[in-house]
Amino acid sequence: MPSISQKGQHMPASPIRKLVPFAEAAKKRGTHVLHLNIGQPDIRTPQVALEAIKNMDLAVVEYSHSAGNESYRKGLAAYYNEHGIAITHEQIIITTGGSEALLFGMMACFDAGDEIIIPEPFYANYNSFALSAGVKVVPVRSSIDSGFALPPIEAFRHAITPRTKGILLCNPGNPTGYLYSRSELEALRDLVKENDLFLFSDEVYREFCYDGAEHISAMSLVGIEENVVLIDSVSKRYSMCGARIGAFITRNKELLATALKFAQARLSPPTFGQIAGEAALKTPKSYFEEVISEYKLRRDTLVDGLNSIPGVVCAKPKGAFYCIAQLPIDDSDVFCQWLLEKFEHKGHTVMMAPATGFYSAPEPGRQQVRLAYVLETPKLELAVECLREALSVYPGRLAKGTAQAAVA
Amino acid sequence: MPSISQKGQHMPASPIRKLVPFAEAAKKRGTHVLHLNIGQPDIRTPQVALEAIKNMDLAVVEYSHSAGNESYRKGLAAYYNEHGIAITHEQIIITTGGSEALLFGMMACFDAGDEIIIPEPFYANYNSFALSAGVKVVPVRSSIDSGFALPPIEAFRHAITPRTKGILLCNPGNPTGYLYSRSELEALRDLVKENDLFLFSDEVYREFCYDGAEHISAMSLVGIEENVVLIDSVSKRYSMCGARIGAFITRNKELLATALKFAQARLSPPTFGQIAGEAALKTPKSYFEEVISEYKLRRDTLVDGLNSIPGVVCAKPKGAFYCIAQLPIDDSDVFCQWLLEKFEHKGHTVMMAPATGFYSAPEPGRQQVRLAYVLETPKLELAVECLREALSVYPGRLAKGTAQAAVA
Repeated sequence: MPSISQKGQHMPASPIRKLVPFAEAAKKRGTHVLHLNIGQPDIRTPQVALEAIKNMDLAVVEYSHSAGNESYRKGLAAYYNEHGIAITHEQIIITTGGSEALLFGMMACFDAGDEIIIPEPFYANYNSFALSAGVKVVPVRSSIDSGFALPPIEAFRHAITPRTKGILLCNPGNPTGYLYSRSELEALRDLVKENDLFLFSDEVYREFCYDGAEHISAMSLVGIEENVVLIDSVSKRYSMCGARIGAFITRNKELLATALKFAQARLSPPTFGQIAGEAALKTPKSYFEEVISEYKLRRDTLVDGLNSIPGVVCAKPKGAFYCIAQLPIDDSDVFCQWLLEKFEHKGHTVMMAPATGFYSAPEPGRQQVRLAYVLETPKLELAVECLREALSVYPGRLAKGTAQAAVA
Repeated sequence: MPSISQKGQHMPASPIRKLVPFAEAAKKRGTHVLHLNIGQPDIRTPQVALEAIKNMDLAVVEYSHSAGNESYRKGLAAYYNEHGIAITHEQIIITTGGSEALLFGMMACFDAGDEIIIPEPFYANYNSFALSAGVKVVPVRSSIDSGFALPPIEAFRHAITPRTKGILLCNPGNPTGYLYSRSELEALRDLVKENDLFLFSDEVYREFCYDGAEHISAMSLVGIEENVVLIDSVSKRYSMCGARIGAFITRNKELLATALKFAQARLSPPTFGQIAGEAALKTPKSYFEEVISEYKLRRDTLVDGLNSIPGVVCAKPKGAFYCIAQLPIDDSDVFCQWLLEKFEHKGHTVMMAPATGFYSAPEPGRQQVRLAYVLETPKLELAVECLREALSVYPGRLAKGTAQAAVA
């Protein structure tokens, strides 16, 4: 039997999905599992998007242009311009989810051995796409103490080597929910310019900002117009993760032409998803007002609830729909599995993502978990109650005062 | 401005799509372009697939399982078993088109510098996926004289080096239409076994076999069960290329688990396409009978027509809906562009794919073009008429007797 590739052997299993078999076993035992582990919103997809699919008038479901339907790209360009991002439809390649946009970007910008700096904790699949492209991820650590703010620019400067070719940001952040300020982004901009790097900015949670905070796109940074790659997706914005529609956007013509060659190789993005995505551009403002106010309520319910549990620390994020909580536990992987295998409270348990998978090496995530607030508030209240109860009986609970020590 | 990757620079532009700007210019001048350049069927998508999309009852368009919906995989397993391919739904990963199945296979099996042997001419994008994975393509030449039959096994044996890890077939073939016989496949099977290689078999044209010829799947070869990777897609079978639904199939557990990690990184295949794909499994037999008889008629119209033009040679393929024709011309890239820029006949011209892009290096394709018979017979008759006329006036026409010499 021929051996699989080294790349394949090193590919990490999804930290979000690896506990699924334990959740399935819990459900078979009759325990209700509260899913805070995955960013799958329960929010309804806009009616206008679903109607477009139901009313479509296609006799042959053809390939589209490799860069996506022109009408959709034009609509999307208008959307970006309304959001202060000045681009044309010719600077957009429609992709199969934000995932494919990231893969195209990695392939088009980096060769084996090149390095990309990413503030950690970061979205676990960044590791996977980097590995696919042979790119080395160089983490720069952010801290729960500052709510996962951008690490000092000096830390980035320190991480730069002759092989550094890019920096990757998620803004607002998955898994942290952190929203970068203008001054943070401008400091990064200067560094990017000074070192002639690519700046990948994953902004798929753009709409979800709270407390009046403003989202600042990397595309609006002056002086690095040719360096920025915007990664986008309709998955979270319109709660249609399954449509698999994203976008790769850059003003850099050479990079765009190169990414298009990768796009041509896979022929075209999904036709049905593009129809839904184009129609979704007509989603009424009221939809977002409702969704954002709902997420804000959920955030407050979950984060305030978590902070009311003795020994738990959770910064209140200003964006996206995730938070990272620090727990008084020995090992988040063990704890998350224990919750599914050994625990229940009023017939329920909680599924969370151990934060170990969101760091380049697991250690800093041992006392941390990522929670997605994608359930209604009564369920979030119940989840907090479960966690309070679980932490009071969990055999691997750390004694008071040791949690911080373990992290340091 | 940071430089793009070496990989990106070496990525070939699509030989099928690179002439698109010239076709667009021709259309703007008012010339009708007969598209024989791309495998986009004009056949109607089965009603049952379109109805499923129109009648779907989703409130939230969620991610599916990373391997695809279980109900779809079970239905697909039943389809394969009906076609003599004994597999279970647990051996299937639903992918975003056959393209993604190929990419997963390349990533999971091969590392940078590994070699894969492919009989040429081959589907141009095999080059692209190999390049993405850092794999070296080693071609073994097949010849128009034998209708692009499998090259002698000795030629494969000669191409094997210590870095050879796989062989990739397309059966029936794009761009040749060649259908491999059992004895050809069994000879390959012995070689694969002897050298412990992976055998990738792209069988997306399985249904389209003519003249009573039987399709033999690589999955039915005894003794290399763990070596075979089946690449499949609904694109051509149900004329729904835009659905972007394919499948990665193997009985090799370790390989499947590895491919699943790549599948998890991109989260899930498209939800809408899976709904259409699952429903399409109920397509009545009569649909295929009609489509196959239509394709057979088209093949005969096109191939017989081509062979009636002085100096043109085209073998009659037994499968898929492509053929490669040898033309008495100086350069197929120049000729195909000339057809779009300088030629018209009764207000029409023909767009074809220069065969240069279907070889690992362009030379053997200089006098060859690939034609897809995806138009109705009257249009194919008109295309033949156009080509007859074009070849009689084309300035780069080779003198009688020189075409073969140029190829040899």
